Amino acid sequence: MARIDDLRKIAARLRIHSLRMTTTAGSGHPTTCLSAADLAACLFFSEMRWNTKDPDDPAGDEFVLSKGHAAPLLWAVYAESGIIPLESLLGLRKITSDLEGHPTPRMKWVKAATGSLGQGLSVGVGMALAQRLDKSPARTFVLMGDGECAEGQVWEAANAAAFWKLRNLRAVVDVNRLGQSDPTMHQHDLPALARKFRAFGWEAIVVDGHKIDRILAALKEAGKAGKPTAILARTIKGKGVSFIEDRNGWHGKPLKADELARALEEIGCLPDIDSRRFVRGPKPYPKPKTAGSFDFPRTAYQEKTATRLAYGNALLSLGKVNPSVVAIDGDVKNSTYADKFFEAFPGRSFQSFIAEQNMVGVGMGLAAKDYVPFMATFAAFLTRAHDQVRMAAYSFSNIKLCGSHVGVSIGEDGPSQMGLEDLAMFRPIPGAVVLYPSDAISSEACVAAMASHRGLAYIRTTRPATPILYPAAETFPIGGSKVLRKAEGDAVTVIAAGITVHEALKAQEELKKGGLGVRVIDAYSIAPLDGEAICREVRETGGRAVVVEDHYAAGGLGEAVAQALAGRGVLKHLCVRELPRSGKPDELLDRYGLSAAHIVRAVKELAAG
Amino acid sequence: MARIDDLRKIAARLRIHSLRMTTTAGSGHPTTCLSAADLAACLFFSEMRWNTKDPDDPAGDEFVLSKGHAAPLLWAVYAESGIIPLESLLGLRKITSDLEGHPTPRMKWVKAATGSLGQGLSVGVGMALAQRLDKSPARTFVLMGDGECAEGQVWEAANAAAFWKLRNLRAVVDVNRLGQSDPTMHQHDLPALARKFRAFGWEAIVVDGHKIDRILAALKEAGKAGKPTAILARTIKGKGVSFIEDRNGWHGKPLKADELARALEEIGCLPDIDSRRFVRGPKPYPKPKTAGSFDFPRTAYQEKTATRLAYGNALLSLGKVNPSVVAIDGDVKNSTYADKFFEAFPGRSFQSFIAEQNMVGVGMGLAAKDYVPFMATFAAFLTRAHDQVRMAAYSFSNIKLCGSHVGVSIGEDGPSQMGLEDLAMFRPIPGAVVLYPSDAISSEACVAAMASHRGLAYIRTTRPATPILYPAAETFPIGGSKVLRKAEGDAVTVIAAGITVHEALKAQEELKKGGLGVRVIDAYSIAPLDGEAICREVRETGGRAVVVEDHYAAGGLGEAVAQALAGRGVLKHLCVRELPRSGKPDELLDRYGLSAAHIVRAVKELAAG
Repeated sequence: MARIDDLRKIAARLRIHSLRMTTTAGSGHPTTCLSAADLAACLFFSEMRWNTKDPDDPAGDEFVLSKGHAAPLLWAVYAESGIIPLESLLGLRKITSDLEGHPTPRMKWVKAATGSLGQGLSVGVGMALAQRLDKSPARTFVLMGDGECAEGQVWEAANAAAFWKLRNLRAVVDVNRLGQSDPTMHQHDLPALARKFRAFGWEAIVVDGHKIDRILAALKEAGKAGKPTAILARTIKGKGVSFIEDRNGWHGKPLKADELARALEEIGCLPDIDSRRFVRGPKPYPKPKTAGSFDFPRTAYQEKTATRLAYGNALLSLGKVNPSVVAIDGDVKNSTYADKFFEAFPGRSFQSFIAEQNMVGVGMGLAAKDYVPFMATFAAFLTRAHDQVRMAAYSFSNIKLCGSHVGVSIGEDGPSQMGLEDLAMFRPIPGAVVLYPSDAISSEACVAAMASHRGLAYIRTTRPATPILYPAAETFPIGGSKVLRKAEGDAVTVIAAGITVHEALKAQEELKKGGLGVRVIDAYSIAPLDGEAICREVRETGGRAVVVEDHYAAGGLGEAVAQALAGRGVLKHLCVRELPRSGKPDELLDRYGLSAAHIVRAVKELAAG
Repeated sequence: MARIDDLRKIAARLRIHSLRMTTTAGSGHPTTCLSAADLAACLFFSEMRWNTKDPDDPAGDEFVLSKGHAAPLLWAVYAESGIIPLESLLGLRKITSDLEGHPTPRMKWVKAATGSLGQGLSVGVGMALAQRLDKSPARTFVLMGDGECAEGQVWEAANAAAFWKLRNLRAVVDVNRLGQSDPTMHQHDLPALARKFRAFGWEAIVVDGHKIDRILAALKEAGKAGKPTAILARTIKGKGVSFIEDRNGWHGKPLKADELARALEEIGCLPDIDSRRFVRGPKPYPKPKTAGSFDFPRTAYQEKTATRLAYGNALLSLGKVNPSVVAIDGDVKNSTYADKFFEAFPGRSFQSFIAEQNMVGVGMGLAAKDYVPFMATFAAFLTRAHDQVRMAAYSFSNIKLCGSHVGVSIGEDGPSQMGLEDLAMFRPIPGAVVLYPSDAISSEACVAAMASHRGLAYIRTTRPATPILYPAAETFPIGGSKVLRKAEGDAVTVIAAGITVHEALKAQEELKKGGLGVRVIDAYSIAPLDGEAICREVRETGGRAVVVEDHYAAGGLGEAVAQALAGRGVLKHLCVRELPRSGKPDELLDRYGLSAAHIVRAVKELAAG
C-alpha cells in the first residue's frame, strides 16, 4: 500500500513529466495536468485495481480521462506504471508517437478518445453498465474538469447513472476554477456543483484536491451510499509552480525553456521512487462467456413492410443468437421498433430517455467492454449526437446506429422530424459503414451485415411500408449494390436507395411502355459505395445517370455517385432542394421532385440530350 | 380580466379544437395538447401581454412552444385569439396549410421552429436576453414537456439563464408523466424536478396544472425572487377524456371518429365564449433604434495572418458600426479571436461556457428579436450543435457561425480538435451560406458578406497564419470564386480553398518550371458554389480538374465540384481519407495527401491522361 508520502512523490513525478513533455512538444496543457496530478496519483497508484499487462482484463477498474487535454498527465501515469518507457514521454504530440495531443485508443489502455469535452461521463456510464452485466467487481472512474460540467451531456449522463443506480461509477471532478478563456461559471463554489450532482441523484463529496489523505478518504467513501459518486476536488490550476498557479491566460500554454527551469526548481528534483510498486492489480475474476453468432434466421416477408419494422424484427432475432448484443433507446422505441428487443431482453435494454448524446456515449462505453450496442432514434435526432459519433470514430468504436423516419416520406409530422442530412453526417467518417435498405428483406440482411462488421455502422430506415423486392435468401454484403432492372440498349441508369427505389421501378415500368429502356440500381450500401458496378452500368447506358434520393442535395447518394463517376458520365440529381413542409408522403415525394413522374422526366431529358 | 370560469371555458375550447384537428388530420399528438390546455389558456388569455396584430411588437411577451408536438394546441390558441380563422384549424398538417405538424415560422407568430425536443429553453434565453438589451418590460415564456427535460441542452440553458440572471424568463413545464414510449424518468415526482431547477439557480414552483387559480397564482409569483422561474405543473396526459387519461400508448395517436365522439361527449359542447376579449395587449413601449451598417473599414494586411485572427478583427470592426451585432462564445474566444469583440463590447457579449447547443439556441432567440448573433467555436465542436443548426434552418434564423481550427492543419492537438466534417454538416442545408477564406483579406470580406446576408451563414477559419493573397479592396461576394493563376494552354484546373490554396499556388509554381500550366481557383464560397465559373475554367483546361481540401472526402468541396461538373470533366480529389493523428501541420498536410507535392503528382497524372 502506498503511503501518503509515496503518493506525494509520485504526484511530483507526474508534474515534472507533464511540464517537460509539453515544453519539449512546444504545445499542450501543462496547467491542467498540474491541477489533477494529486488526483491521478491517488487513483492509479492507490485506489484503482488494474492490470498494466492487460488493458482488457475484465477484473480491472476502468478509467476515462474526460478532460482529454490533460493527456500528458495520463501518458505520464502510463510511463510511471511501466506500460511505456519513461523516455517515450518526450515523443508527445510527434507524428511518430502514439502519445497524441488528446487521448486516442492508438494507445491501447485508452478505451475511448476524448478531447471534445463533456463526453467522458457517458462513456463511463456505459462501462459501468458493462461491468454490471459482466457481474464484475470492477469499477469505473471518470476524471472530469469543472469547465466541461457546463456541457448538457454531463447531466444526461448523471441522470442515466442515477436512474440505473450505478454505484460502481465514480466521477472525480478536478475543480480548478479556470476554463480556457474565462473562469468557469461556479469557479471555486464547490457546494454549487455538489448541489447539482445531488439533485441529479448522486452522492457528492467535496474535498481539497491537493490533500492526498482527503482524496484517499473520499475515494474510500465513494459508492457506500449505493449511488454513483462525484468527488468534487478543489484544485489549483498550475499547482506547484507559483508563477502559473491559479492564473487566467495559462490554458493550453507550455512553459518556455527558462520558465521550465524555474518551475522545476520550485517543484524540486524528480523524487526517487519506483511508482510501479504501487500499482494494485485486480483480483482474478472469471468473465462470463458472451460469444455469440451474428447469423440469425431471416423472415420470409411477403407483404408490404416498413424497413424500420424489419429492423426491429432483425434486432430481436439477433438478440436471440447473440448475448453480447445490447440496445439503447432515446424514448422512441415504439417508432424505431427497437421495442421488440426491449420486451424480449429487458436485462440488455437501456432506456436513455430523450438524451441522444448520452445514448451514443453509453454505447461507446459498452462497446469498449465488448458489447455490441444498437442505438436507434429518428435520423433527424441523431444529429444531436454528431459530435459523439465523431468521437466514436476516433475511438475505433464498434457501435451500431439506426436512424428511422428519413426524408420527406415521413409526411405530416413536418421538417423537424425528417432525416435529410444523416447521410451527409455519416458518409464523411473514414471507414464508417452506411446502409440504406429499400425493403424488409434487405433491411434484415443489412442488420446482419452491420452486426458482423467490426466498426461504426449506420442503417437508415423508412417510415412507410414498402413492397418486397427480394427473395428471403438474398444476401446484401457491405459495399454491394443490386441491379434490379437491366436490358440490352438501356438508355439511362437510375441509381436509387430506400424509398426512391420504388419510385425508380415505377418510372422504369412507365418508360418501358414508351420504349425507353432504363437500368435501375438499388445502391443499398451508401458507404462504401459500389462505385465500380455503378460506373460500369452507367458506362453501359451511354454514360447517362440519374440519382434520386430522399435527402438534401449535398453529402448524400448523389454526391457519392458524382464522386465515384469522377467525370465518366453525365449526372442528373433528384433530391430535396428546399426546406420542406408537412403533407402526405406521396404529395411530398412529388412536390420535392422525387416521385416516378420526376424520374421519368429526368430520364427523358437525359436520353434526349 | 379573465375569471377562472372564463379560462376554464377557453381551455375546453382548446381541448375540443385539438381533438378535432388531429382526428381530421389522421395524425398528431392530442393527448399532449390536453395536458397543457389549462396552462395555455392561463398564459395566452390572462398572464401574457401580447399583440395579435403584430408578432414583432417589441413590447409583447414572447412565447416558445418547446414541446413542439403540441402544435395543434398552439394553432388553436391562435384561432381563439383571432389571428387565424377557426375554420383553418381543420387544415392541420395539410400541404396547403401553414399549420404544420410541428411549429415553424411559416406561421409568423412562431419565432423558432420546434419539434426536436429540449431546444426551446435556449431560444427563450436568447429572447429574454434580447428583451433585456432592448430595455423592454416584456417577458419570455417557454412551455416545455417533462420528457424533454432529459435533454442536456435544457440544463445548459438553465445554467445560462441563472448566470445571466434572467428574471424575465419563465419556463412552464407540463409534467404529464408520460413520454413517447415509456413513463418519464421522474414521472410525477415533481419535487425531483424542482430540486434540479433550484440546483441550477432557478426559482421553482410546483402546481397542479389543471387548477386555473393555482396556475395563475404561480404565474404571478414568477420572477419575484429575481431569478428565472420554472413553474412545474403536475398534469394528466389526455386530461378531460377518461379513456385516454394517463395511459401509456396514447402518445402521437389521434382519436378515431367514434372515439372522438365519445371524447366530445365527455368534455361537453364548445363553450360559448369569445376568447379574443381576454387577450391582453402590451403597454406601448418605444424600442431603441439599433439600425446599423454592415460596411466596416477593412484592414490592409501585409504580413502572414491567420484567417481566424482576421475573423476576430472583422467582428470587432463590425461591432463598431452595427449595434445589433452580438457575440456568443463557448469559452474558446481566445482561440477564435472573438475575444476582441468581447473586450470592446461586454454588454453585447455572452459567455455560454462549454455548451455549444445552448450557444446556438441562444443565438436563435437573439436573431428572432432582430439581433445579429455571431457564434464561434472550433469547427469540430460545432458538430455538438448540429441539431440546433438544423432547427435554425427551419426557423429561417439569421444566425452567423464561425468554425475555427479546421482540418489537419491545426497540427499537434490531434483529431478530436480537427474540423474535418463541418462542410458536410453545413452544405446540405438549403440556402445556407458557407464561406472558407484563404487569407486575412478575404476573411474580413467574408465576415462583411455573411453579416449583410439575411440567413444562416457559416465561415470556416484556419489555425496557422497564411500569406496575404489579395489587395485590401478586393470584394468577395457570396457565390463567387477567384481565378488566381491562369494562362493560355493551362492543362489542369486546381480548385482549392483555405489553406490548400497556398499549397496549390506552390504546386503551380513548381509545375510552371516544368512547363506544365495550371489554373488555380480559390473557391472561397463553398455554398453557393461558383459552379459556372469552375465549370468554365475546367472546360478550358481540357476538362481536367484537381480538387484539394483539408476536409474528409464526403460532403465537402470535392463533392460540391463533382456535383457542379455533373460529368463534364475528369476529377481528382485530394482530401483526408483516414482518421488522422497528432503531428506538425506541414507533416500532416503531406501525410494526408494535401501538400503541394501531392498536387503536383495529381496534376501530372491527369495531364498525362
